[in-house]
Amino acid sequence: SPEPAHAAHGPERLGRTALLDRFRAVRGATECLSAPLTPEDQMLQSMEEASPARWHRAHTTWFFETFLLKPHDPAYEVLDPAYDYLFNSYYQAVGPQYSRPHRGLVSRPTVAEVTAYRAYVDDAVTAFADRADDATWQACAPLIELGLHHEQQHQELMVTDLKHALSFNPRWPAIYPAPETQAAETPLGWQDFPGGIILCGHTGNLTEDGFAYDCEGPRHQVLLRDFALASRPITNAEFIAFMEDGGYCDPRWWHSEGWDRVCAEAWTAPLYWLRDGDAASPSSGWTTYTLHGRVPVAPREPVCHISFFEAAAYAAWASEQTVAGETHDVRLPTEFELEHAASGLDPRAGHFAGTAPGTRALHPRGARLDAEASAGGLQQIFGDVWEWTQSAYAPYPGFKPAAGAIGEYNGKFMANQMVLRGGSVATPEDHMRATYRNFFPAHSRWQFSGLRLARDL
Amino acid sequence: SPEPAHAAHGPERLGRTALLDRFRAVRGATECLSAPLTPEDQMLQSMEEASPARWHRAHTTWFFETFLLKPHDPAYEVLDPAYDYLFNSYYQAVGPQYSRPHRGLVSRPTVAEVTAYRAYVDDAVTAFADRADDATWQACAPLIELGLHHEQQHQELMVTDLKHALSFNPRWPAIYPAPETQAAETPLGWQDFPGGIILCGHTGNLTEDGFAYDCEGPRHQVLLRDFALASRPITNAEFIAFMEDGGYCDPRWWHSEGWDRVCAEAWTAPLYWLRDGDAASPSSGWTTYTLHGRVPVAPREPVCHISFFEAAAYAAWASEQTVAGETHDVRLPTEFELEHAASGLDPRAGHFAGTAPGTRALHPRGARLDAEASAGGLQQIFGDVWEWTQSAYAPYPGFKPAAGAIGEYNGKFMANQMVLRGGSVATPEDHMRATYRNFFPAHSRWQFSGLRLARDL
Amino acid sequence: SPEPAHAAHGPERLGRTALLDRFRAVRGATECLSAPLTPEDQMLQSMEEASPARWHRAHTTWFFETFLLKPHDPAYEVLDPAYDYLFNSYYQAVGPQYSRPHRGLVSRPTVAEVTAYRAYVDDAVTAFADRADDATWQACAPLIELGLHHEQQHQELMVTDLKHALSFNPRWPAIYPAPETQAAETPLGWQDFPGGIILCGHTGNLTEDGFAYDCEGPRHQVLLRDFALASRPITNAEFIAFMEDGGYCDPRWWHSEGWDRVCAEAWTAPLYWLRDGDAASPSSGWTTYTLHGRVPVAPREPVCHISFFEAAAYAAWASEQTVAGETHDVRLPTEFELEHAASGLDPRAGHFAGTAPGTRALHPRGARLDAEASAGGLQQIFGDVWEWTQSAYAPYPGFKPAAGAIGEYNGKFMANQMVLRGGSVATPEDHMRATYRNFFPAHSRWQFSGLRLARDL
Amino acid sequence: SPEPAHAAHGPERLGRTALLDRFRAVRGATECLSAPLTPEDQMLQSMEEASPARWHRAHTTWFFETFLLKPHDPAYEVLDPAYDYLFNSYYQAVGPQYSRPHRGLVSRPTVAEVTAYRAYVDDAVTAFADRADDATWQACAPLIELGLHHEQQHQELMVTDLKHALSFNPRWPAIYPAPETQAAETPLGWQDFPGGIILCGHTGNLTEDGFAYDCEGPRHQVLLRDFALASRPITNAEFIAFMEDGGYCDPRWWHSEGWDRVCAEAWTAPLYWLRDGDAASPSSGWTTYTLHGRVPVAPREPVCHISFFEAAAYAAWASEQTVAGETHDVRLPTEFELEHAASGLDPRAGHFAGTAPGTRALHPRGARLDAEASAGGLQQIFGDVWEWTQSAYAPYPGFKPAAGAIGEYNGKFMANQMVLRGGSVATPEDHMRATYRNFFPAHSRWQFSGLRLARDL
Ligand SMILES: [Fe+3]
Ligand SMILES: [Fe+3]
Ligand SMILES: [Fe+3]
Ligand SMILES: [Fe+3]
Repeated sequence: SPEPAHAAHGPERLGRTALLDRFRAVRGATECLSAPLTPEDQMLQSMEEASPARWHRAHTTWFFETFLLKPHDPAYEVLDPAYDYLFNSYYQAVGPQYSRPHRGLVSRPTVAEVTAYRAYVDDAVTAFADRADDATWQACAPLIELGLHHEQQHQELMVTDLKHALSFNPRWPAIYPAPETQAAETPLGWQDFPGGIILCGHTGNLTEDGFAYDCEGPRHQVLLRDFALASRPITNAEFIAFMEDGGYCDPRWWHSEGWDRVCAEAWTAPLYWLRDGDAASPSSGWTTYTLHGRVPVAPREPVCHISFFEAAAYAAWASEQTVAGETHDVRLPTEFELEHAASGLDPRAGHFAGTAPGTRALHPRGARLDAEASAGGLQQIFGDVWEWTQSAYAPYPGFKPAAGAIGEYNGKFMANQMVLRGGSVATPEDHMRATYRNFFPAHSRWQFSGLRLARDL
Repeated sequence: SPEPAHAAHGPERLGRTALLDRFRAVRGATECLSAPLTPEDQMLQSMEEASPARWHRAHTTWFFETFLLKPHDPAYEVLDPAYDYLFNSYYQAVGPQYSRPHRGLVSRPTVAEVTAYRAYVDDAVTAFADRADDATWQACAPLIELGLHHEQQHQELMVTDLKHALSFNPRWPAIYPAPETQAAETPLGWQDFPGGIILCGHTGNLTEDGFAYDCEGPRHQVLLRDFALASRPITNAEFIAFMEDGGYCDPRWWHSEGWDRVCAEAWTAPLYWLRDGDAASPSSGWTTYTLHGRVPVAPREPVCHISFFEAAAYAAWASEQTVAGETHDVRLPTEFELEHAASGLDPRAGHFAGTAPGTRALHPRGARLDAEASAGGLQQIFGDVWEWTQSAYAPYPGFKPAAGAIGEYNGKFMANQMVLRGGSVATPEDHMRATYRNFFPAHSRWQFSGLRLARDL
Repeated sequence: SPEPAHAAHGPERLGRTALLDRFRAVRGATECLSAPLTPEDQMLQSMEEASPARWHRAHTTWFFETFLLKPHDPAYEVLDPAYDYLFNSYYQAVGPQYSRPHRGLVSRPTVAEVTAYRAYVDDAVTAFADRADDATWQACAPLIELGLHHEQQHQELMVTDLKHALSFNPRWPAIYPAPETQAAETPLGWQDFPGGIILCGHTGNLTEDGFAYDCEGPRHQVLLRDFALASRPITNAEFIAFMEDGGYCDPRWWHSEGWDRVCAEAWTAPLYWLRDGDAASPSSGWTTYTLHGRVPVAPREPVCHISFFEAAAYAAWASEQTVAGETHDVRLPTEFELEHAASGLDPRAGHFAGTAPGTRALHPRGARLDAEASAGGLQQIFGDVWEWTQSAYAPYPGFKPAAGAIGEYNGKFMANQMVLRGGSVATPEDHMRATYRNFFPAHSRWQFSGLRLARDL
Repeated sequence: SPEPAHAAHGPERLGRTALLDRFRAVRGATECLSAPLTPEDQMLQSMEEASPARWHRAHTTWFFETFLLKPHDPAYEVLDPAYDYLFNSYYQAVGPQYSRPHRGLVSRPTVAEVTAYRAYVDDAVTAFADRADDATWQACAPLIELGLHHEQQHQELMVTDLKHALSFNPRWPAIYPAPETQAAETPLGWQDFPGGIILCGHTGNLTEDGFAYDCEGPRHQVLLRDFALASRPITNAEFIAFMEDGGYCDPRWWHSEGWDRVCAEAWTAPLYWLRDGDAASPSSGWTTYTLHGRVPVAPREPVCHISFFEAAAYAAWASEQTVAGETHDVRLPTEFELEHAASGLDPRAGHFAGTAPGTRALHPRGARLDAEASAGGLQQIFGDVWEWTQSAYAPYPGFKPAAGAIGEYNGKFMANQMVLRGGSVATPEDHMRATYRNFFPAHSRWQFSGLRLARDL
């Protein structure tokens, strides 16, 4: 298993040694994640939005080949020209791409050949780093760093895509170890934040301020009103209360399009949940499929694998519940509220799979009462589950996509997507930061996505 | 043809005489719009999102019956109890609804029976208004006003749905008169606006500040940066330049989902455009279907019937054009920028079909150089074409849907919709105001939708 | 209402007077059938396979214009050249056709214009018949006769398409009068037929042997085994026994593709049936939609609006029932068995809507015990319901499609269709003959289709 | 590689030694066919109608477990109870089945576990055969034989499903060896057959008359007319003449449903063909994907991978060609004509992949002039390509499905399928016989399917 990958965050992180260390760590982490997967597992593609593990491993390699080695390393010899067509995801400027919904229909190059491709490119990058003069290195180090963050993003997708695909297997394969159990119960508290003009987003000065994707900037003023955030995400027990109150049967809590989904896809619970009476459920009560097998739903864990529509429906329902004689008027937070709250916290304090050495328990844990909780009463701002916000994914004022193919990275998805914040247990731990904007369509459920409530003061 | 419907905007508009005058005017305007339609025309439903004219006329009547007469007029006798099921659009709290995609499959009640239903409810509302005591009137006048705005919204939909359906007729029916032609050409100018904290949205005090839908409030602070707005919408000639530069063939201008639409639906021009070589085109060059028949595309008219994706692609392309040696960096405006610019202008100065007495030329005109142009250099802020913004349709801070069935009105559509501002030639003229938020999915093209550019200063 | 249309069947039927009489009768019958329909009704198209009544009326007119007047009458002036495109059904050799699934989206020409088109062509045909010299008449009389049978086929489709469309109306419109009720119950008997080589099909000598479509010939030898036919079709009561025995829930009775339909479309009863507990049913027990409104299912009437799959499933189930201590081994008949049985019977003795003067009760009646029953113990061989056979629609040995556009008539449908025999209550009475082959896909249910059992001896 | 599997055809074939020899040979042949496949290859499922190789290997094993071992061998211990759900294909009477379109989404049991499952069941069957008393053996030998023919059918499907899936790989994998090339050209001749009453089908006496599926009987009289059969199938060169004459562009040759397919799926050539200008073609002229890679289309090989619609369109077109001053009036043969012609010929003389020891060249060869040609001038009646007939797949007179689960085998597919005769190069050589009826939907193209012409005399 690879070294923990939390490299330095200052400018020194772009130095050869530090960056190559990180290169090896991140590339190794992909292999570590895919180690328990058979070649058969790596072929699975269960929906158009997902990709086979085999493809993720090759595509992240292609990224280094395409954006680093081919343009910058004159000594680089392409291993197989067909890979360009097979492993380009969506970079129109690079060339045509093999049809995305058919990625699961390519059995050759085999998994072993993909492994060889990874090793070949790893060697080429390492040799290139040794050889490059300083000017070249200065130009290329940011590309390597970008490639590593790109790969970390795909690590999470590889895991969530795999979980989705394996959930079609009635034998509920267990791929990764089970997490430790937790007994403590943590009541829901609130932390207040005064409003005002704050600064959000990344400066774009990657050298000084650390890595960020283009969509995280420009840093800009945002006007916030007084608000409060819940101390932790909503738990399974709390979500079950919504379900038991008929939450999935009452259109008044739902967006119109959300309700259409509920009806068309017969949603009655979060993704992967089954209950006694469902043909496929092995037990009484609710169970859920996890990467350590099908297990009972744990009441104190954060609810997970819900869509934006379910998160919003929960908040609408919760607004009409009386809690301790008080009406709630809760809502989903904006992405700026979450960023503001997160900006003083250490992402590395979050719960990511990688933090527990020797294990890869890919499942969110419940909030804790103890010292591990973040300062200020807020827990799980980073890690465990992505938190849906009420913010549509849109360009920040003054946003310009980067020039060239790499500019396709984010801007072209800025329609019909909602922002999620904070990372999940499947997020590589040093991939996270306060300005990070994840985004998915409002109906998506296969990420480790949950919700945290907010309210106006 | 009915009286011009620009009733008072102050509190006196809710008085019996004024409101009943307006009631008659608005209800009459629906009949005036449908007068040229045969019973056959009124049956047409060309897609799930659209409804037959027959249904619009009945549904707007059902609205008064359901929200005004049944709960508030003890003397009211329902004309036909089946209408409740047939003419409810989506108010889940009122009861089940006849399947929307099947609205075109209901031939009975006939068009004549719908006309009788309208007269029956008109009489009932009038009698009720005469009879009601003052307290009842105070409670009900806002419901009548809401019903009239609801009906005006449906007037526009009736016209756009009709246009869509008639466009399937290879004989290109002309339903309404052609507009007067215009010769003048108006260069594109820019008006600057300084940034700062401004107030947007409606106060919610409908009595004092005029009518608004719930989604237009609460009035709240918005932080704007310095920006400029183009003096008029983009014209057909300007859009053709984009087309001729391969705009519809180059994925780099497009959102990813927009590009998927371009490919899947073979978009090569705005909706309704055909050109020589297209089997169905009667002439050389581009023609477009209008409600006065198929006509050549007029270069100086605002481009119309484009989706958000096309508007955004145009802006992305325009940003890379050099105009007078200057790079543009243009973009779509936010809804707040447009509201801010509109807030000092008179909506009634806009170009709506109703303003030219005796005609219903339902087609946008080109911008003018003359005195009719709005103050401040901005033209066509109101009327002609709806302008796509870069703002996703989302709740304003502190927004709460109204209680009860009427609360389903807007909030439940706040996902995957983009805001449009300013109204179109098909908008009833006194239905418009600076705070008005229209919204449609990003791919929608059958509204009279165009674009105006903005840029940062 | 028009004269009963049973013209002579000998060669004299092609004389001017006789044929023009029949022309007027058949053309009038179409108008008589559509008389109760509003313009709105005539717009309805509820599925791709169906067409609006308006279209049927125009298309049958276009047939005379295209195949008779344009090629043979130099004096004929086309009323509107656009009709060719709008009202061609599928004759590729004639030219392009307006998209079939969009026929319901054409509101102009209006219903009144279609009526005028019919009158215009009627006049032209009549004038042409007066004027034509004998040679021309000899050449054209068969085309007129073909056009009339074509129109009679469309009369039945117009009625079944209409019924399908009106069934979407929750008010269950009654269009035609209700039939007289019948009290008698008729037990199921069997008539035996010895096997051997028989002749089937039409000679193709239309002058001497009466009209037939091309697919009914050549007359050819068929080898039959000893068999028996049930004396009447299966009744609703008998079919309900199948239903109550779980017929729609047990895959073992069904073709694999039939079972897929049962599951995908949730079939639990014949088309148009509802029962208490279905939201839309007004009564307890089973009801069915008819052209005289929604009525209780009458036990002694023949079961109707079933697919081939349901007919075959019924026969498979019935084969395993013990009737009076005897196992059945029943099956569907072949088309040749039914033709053989029908060949000695008078089609005009069948129950067609037109036989009862002054009424158009478009609903099958139960079998009778009385003298009206056909000779030989077989009842309802003609009329009431089409009977599904186990014969796929295929060319007879030596079949050649007619040359030219008219040759497209039948041969191109000889794949994935099953033959039905005997006509239904919706079939015009003098459109039927023993050699007549109707055909529909195995899943079709909107025709008046039932079943009669057969068995081996 | 396994022994050639042509066991005896007389009653002695059901003796223990002979049948166990054949068991080992057939089971070994499956493994031999899958030997070149990687685990990744064995996961591929490219359409709902196809299955992964992994599944075919397991399902054929499940067949022996379910129909032989579980009911007849009390000593048998089920290896894994979950396999019943995973590897049942469609036997409703056995229990529920894992969703067919999702078979490609099951990665566990792995390919290695499937191999172990095969060995486990092989051992169990062998031990059972040793142990069984004579009465048990008499009862079970036919089940084993059925299971072996079932497995041979799946061997062909495994190969055709694999070819379909691999064709999505732009690298055109070569899995099996290339066939020897052939130079000879064979002109098309005709063999005449006098008509009369003949016997077709199998007696059902499997002991004496050899194995057959239930659908091949009862043996029954069929009335044939005088006819002639072409001496060999249509070649690629002949089919290209149809293509070059615009065959795929002219609706008049096509069934209506065939033409819809041509348009909807943009057919311009047989499946797997590409030509210069197609993005994916590596050469000029037509190439085709084969299991030995993408190769030029060989003019003298039989045309292959065409649907019934294409076969019928070719025949319709050929009927209008003048050949040596003579009009053709050709057509597709009936299944009875082909069976009659085949009944005197030796199936083992056909060209099947297995006949050439040491190779598995899975590609049809051209007809030969030499002694290898069958008696009577007819070549390739068996092997090379399946020949589409004009016969719909229907029950023979007196056909009854076998009782119990095994009775689901054939009867339930007797709707909307056309019969093919004679086997292909992918058919195991001793799986073929003159009465064999293969069947596929009229649009299917992924089998090795071609056509032979017939004509009336
Ligand atoms: Fe990527
Ligand atoms: Fe409405
Ligand atoms: Fe027709
Ligand atoms: Fe099988």
